[in-house]
Amino acid sequence: MAEGRLQGPVLVVGAGLLGTSLGLTLTKLGVPVWLRDTSSEHLRTALGLGAGQIAPDIAPPPQLVVVAVPPDVIGETLRWALTHHPQAVVTDVGSIKTGPLEQLRARGSQGLARYVGGHPMAGSERSGPLAASAALFDGRPWAVTPHQDSSADAVELVLELVRMTGATPVRMSPDEHDRAVARTSHLPHLLASLVAGRLVDAPPGHLALSGQGVRDVTRVAAGDPDLWQQIVTGNAPAVVHLLGEVRDQLDELIAAVSKGKRKELTAILEQGVAGTTAIPGKHGGPARQTASVFVSVPDHPGELARLFADAGASGVNIEDVRIDHDPGRPTGLVELLVAPDMEEHLLTSLESRGWVTHR
Amino acid sequence: MAEGRLQGPVLVVGAGLLGTSLGLTLTKLGVPVWLRDTSSEHLRTALGLGAGQIAPDIAPPPQLVVVAVPPDVIGETLRWALTHHPQAVVTDVGSIKTGPLEQLRARGSQGLARYVGGHPMAGSERSGPLAASAALFDGRPWAVTPHQDSSADAVELVLELVRMTGATPVRMSPDEHDRAVARTSHLPHLLASLVAGRLVDAPPGHLALSGQGVRDVTRVAAGDPDLWQQIVTGNAPAVVHLLGEVRDQLDELIAAVSKGKRKELTAILEQGVAGTTAIPGKHGGPARQTASVFVSVPDHPGELARLFADAGASGVNIEDVRIDHDPGRPTGLVELLVAPDMEEHLLTSLESRGWVTHR
Repeated sequence: MAEGRLQGPVLVVGAGLLGTSLGLTLTKLGVPVWLRDTSSEHLRTALGLGAGQIAPDIAPPPQLVVVAVPPDVIGETLRWALTHHPQAVVTDVGSIKTGPLEQLRARGSQGLARYVGGHPMAGSERSGPLAASAALFDGRPWAVTPHQDSSADAVELVLELVRMTGATPVRMSPDEHDRAVARTSHLPHLLASLVAGRLVDAPPGHLALSGQGVRDVTRVAAGDPDLWQQIVTGNAPAVVHLLGEVRDQLDELIAAVSKGKRKELTAILEQGVAGTTAIPGKHGGPARQTASVFVSVPDHPGELARLFADAGASGVNIEDVRIDHDPGRPTGLVELLVAPDMEEHLLTSLESRGWVTHR
Repeated sequence: MAEGRLQGPVLVVGAGLLGTSLGLTLTKLGVPVWLRDTSSEHLRTALGLGAGQIAPDIAPPPQLVVVAVPPDVIGETLRWALTHHPQAVVTDVGSIKTGPLEQLRARGSQGLARYVGGHPMAGSERSGPLAASAALFDGRPWAVTPHQDSSADAVELVLELVRMTGATPVRMSPDEHDRAVARTSHLPHLLASLVAGRLVDAPPGHLALSGQGVRDVTRVAAGDPDLWQQIVTGNAPAVVHLLGEVRDQLDELIAAVSKGKRKELTAILEQGVAGTTAIPGKHGGPARQTASVFVSVPDHPGELARLFADAGASGVNIEDVRIDHDPGRPTGLVELLVAPDMEEHLLTSLESRGWVTHR
């Protein structure tokens, strides 16, 4: 049984990636979760994964309703939840916060004090319950967006939900939230789509030169187009404002490149560099300096274990690991990221145990 | 001593990221490498890393000269190399291939048959000799761009250089190369710069909502602005052509979003999805399907080793590893990527050994 104020039951409406992940997280914490979804296939999958149960016919009222449906139907689902569960606090996990609130106000929904919006920054290019994980929210920012009529109790309960998932609550107004995600999520997604769209027309053979850069830039563009058209449409004013700024700067860029104006081009590139350093480090902390140690590892089950055992024996803490696997080769390349002052010690230690490092 | 046709000595002109990495790779293979750089600091660093030596006063002529200088000075450095090393094959590792060749032709350079351009797709947002690694080229595409007067012997020697580094040679004409990288490298870089540039003006607190998406989209924009203005300026016609296409589609996008035309917006997003699937899998193979197993791991040196030992004992091959570290917490979250049909077996096996998994 959970120990905090949030004891459940929690009704999760919508068994997609976010709803199912939340159900898994809360179930593991001992909070009773009831699931609903208009798609019987999604619902069956989520139930099968252990993300919750169907609400019994005779049941105590839910303490909290979490609306995790597509953007277009969030407003009406919130209204339904506030009406049908008159004692519950109601939140949602949608990507836009002002639109649904305006809908509730326009329709004079009852119980608006019990509604507090939320938005975990934990989507991915994958979707649906099969991509769900109880770890999805761990360490991610989760916007909590009270409006002027939200009760303090409702806000506190939603903040507790966020903390229980391991996410970091970021409190802001619905309007601030929408302008923030236009910049940090919707604009990057749309520009990634434009870059990826140009790849479709590539002459034969040209994409053989694709490196890590274009993969990184375009990764998010693989996201579900129907979901994203709803998100972008729902946040149109803020998105159009930023797209207009990008268009103006694109015109400047085209002029600079076509006329060979290097100073203007450099200024645009320098502003980009400044932007990359403006992003806070993971979990809000400063980015940690690391050094990379490269090791060749034969592609057998036991070898990676042996490498980590040897790295562990060296006493060096591994900050991160990247594996570059080539299906056509007998060895993979493993990159171990460690504190810079540990690099030489780890290299020497691994070499003394017979590993092939790349200095 | 190396066994193939490429015996060296190899003269590497320019001790930045690429030149130093190449020096490290060839030195490890037993090929004698001589280094030159106008920056005595870069040269000292590269020599200290073991990437090669200063050419002795009395020395055999180099078999191969690799020009690894900034784009603006590639043409004149190639000309110098062809003139001063009349028996050597000459190549370069620059990001643009037509401009330097035109410069050589315009100035009637001698020995053009001995020149074959090249371009490893192995840059990164880091630069300079300290970021160098002998593993930098392993598994990466490396364009080899003979022109109509290149001799077959020269082409073969450059192809051998590429293969010795572990890279995959991709042969194409200089013109095709420049149009290809405009699409797969220069356009993504510039659009990433525009997205990153918008982050600079973000109101306080907004960037707290930055997720993995915006980090991925903007990562390349951290690259050296002076290097990139040279690359983009050197490939201006191909870049401007693609930027024009993007601008047209950006106008369509702005119209679709501001007028709520969902079908048009969806079409643009769908084209983006198609683009992401057009990128070939790593090393040209198809992308491998994987499933993710999440495990909580205490943040001590020995724990990761114990996890891999236990994973190894399960007999499951780990395809990739991601570690989500929170400096403020006692545990990290490790994501093990495995073949989908191995997921359940690995989960069960790790749980039976006491690991906390996230199902």
